[in-house]
Amino acid sequence: MIARTPDDITAAVRAEAERTADPRAREILVAAITHLHAFVREARLTEPEFHQLCAALARAGQRTTASHNEVVLGAGSLGVSALVCLQNNAEASTANLLGPFWREGAPVLARGASIVRSPTPGPAVRVCAQVVDVEGAPVAGARVDVWHASPEGFYENQDPAQADMNLRGRFETDAEGRIEFHTVKPVGYPVPVDGPVGDLLRLQGRHNLRPAHIHFLIAKDGFKTQFAQLYSADDPNLESDVQFAVTRPLVGHYAAQADGSFVLEHRFVVTPGVSRLPVPPISGKAAGERPALQVLARR
Amino acid sequence: MIARTPDDITAAVRAEAERTADPRAREILVAAITHLHAFVREARLTEPEFHQLCAALARAGQRTTASHNEVVLGAGSLGVSALVCLQNNAEASTANLLGPFWREGAPVLARGASIVRSPTPGPAVRVCAQVVDVEGAPVAGARVDVWHASPEGFYENQDPAQADMNLRGRFETDAEGRIEFHTVKPVGYPVPVDGPVGDLLRLQGRHNLRPAHIHFLIAKDGFKTQFAQLYSADDPNLESDVQFAVTRPLVGHYAAQADGSFVLEHRFVVTPGVSRLPVPPISGKAAGERPALQVLARR
Repeated sequence: MIARTPDDITAAVRAEAERTADPRAREILVAAITHLHAFVREARLTEPEFHQLCAALARAGQRTTASHNEVVLGAGSLGVSALVCLQNNAEASTANLLGPFWREGAPVLARGASIVRSPTPGPAVRVCAQVVDVEGAPVAGARVDVWHASPEGFYENQDPAQADMNLRGRFETDAEGRIEFHTVKPVGYPVPVDGPVGDLLRLQGRHNLRPAHIHFLIAKDGFKTQFAQLYSADDPNLESDVQFAVTRPLVGHYAAQADGSFVLEHRFVVTPGVSRLPVPPISGKAAGERPALQVLARR
Repeated sequence: MIARTPDDITAAVRAEAERTADPRAREILVAAITHLHAFVREARLTEPEFHQLCAALARAGQRTTASHNEVVLGAGSLGVSALVCLQNNAEASTANLLGPFWREGAPVLARGASIVRSPTPGPAVRVCAQVVDVEGAPVAGARVDVWHASPEGFYENQDPAQADMNLRGRFETDAEGRIEFHTVKPVGYPVPVDGPVGDLLRLQGRHNLRPAHIHFLIAKDGFKTQFAQLYSADDPNLESDVQFAVTRPLVGHYAAQADGSFVLEHRFVVTPGVSRLPVPPISGKAAGERPALQVLARR
């Protein structure tokens, strides 16, 4: 093909994509090219705008390191992660976004252990979670990874001041499908805005806050591996999560105790499927200084 | 918004995008979100597939350095660069892709100079180019940057064996709108396939060859800055350029001379517009070893 018109280009690119041998890859590629080209046409993208977009994409990748994933952060900030989640899980599901901060290798802990590994401020919480199947029967022997940000707004991988694997742990459900652990009550935090995702949020006049949450990864043979995030009902940003990720089945209630601590009980429902662990989006801990937290005001 | 359905997510993300203050940025963002979400739905993207796509995007950015731009290479390999070009320039235009290899700071040369700066194999070529406006009147005093790959398939920035700025030069058109320079006849070359773009091409069973070409950047106040690529009519891959970039007005004819050298004459037509230089996609020269060239067979 020697192109004369924009239609010639799109037809040629699609024809090449149609040659893809793997049927599923072909389906994804053809859909991607169709919508990518439709976007370029509908937006009437100019050459300088195209160059700017390429530069922003390159920067997102360049900022993705062993301890930070700007691409996943960007996909979340455009609602893509939440859309992928909701279209792959039933409305009543407790499945949610994996997020950019799951690490493999969290310490395996016994029932009732604490995941606080270095001095961490915040009220004490006892978390009691149960994993059940769609009939409500307990799922015993499931692997449950838990992780959350410190009440200062940092996951340990972002924060040289925290011990390695602080606020991370791995448990196994008992015969009743239960795990239990101690931690501190998480608070909402701002996502990093010193990269292209920050530029995007500023352009839209959005804030960059996530409501407080605890992550869960639940894996057992015969069940679809579940990524969950358990949000706090008292968080002011449940409705305006920068990652568009909050669903009703994941709003958790912290019951205040007489001694100032909290108890959080929640039930996760896993569905039949393939047990498969994702590639961890990060693999290590940042060295050097703790980054400055920056909160963008909503315009 | 606390989401219940995929539609809730898309509506919320669009509503945030609609708040963008800048009208043009809003237009682009809304179109981008519309088609990004439509792609996710149409492809029924699963969670593992979504994670793989994020990882491939991150790798493209991570491989983008001062001397290589994998994102621009990927956009070209999906026909996006060619589409952007054709929808912003008339069918008869000599405008083409900027490509990933324009560098600022090429040596300013006098009419008739050679751009060969270190020993480079290949037959000698005298290039005689003329820049005219849409009425055919010569455009004098235009800046013309030229650059091309060596007949071994490497731009100097990729190739420690070539002198800095080899096969690059900057000229100014004379009163007749002409420039003239000496170089060696370029050959087609394979684009790098050791990153995600290579994975994409392998998936589709495509080859990774570009037809032989010389790049031109033509800039003068009052005219839209033109990126051109002058292809060789004798190249076997004109119709299957991995970047989908060849147009008829850019097929150049190398006239063989009695002494084995060639003369290449061509006319470029610039259009009224804003003279603006792009951000250079690369800024320097790779150190270390010359990379191995790898040619993928078309399946």
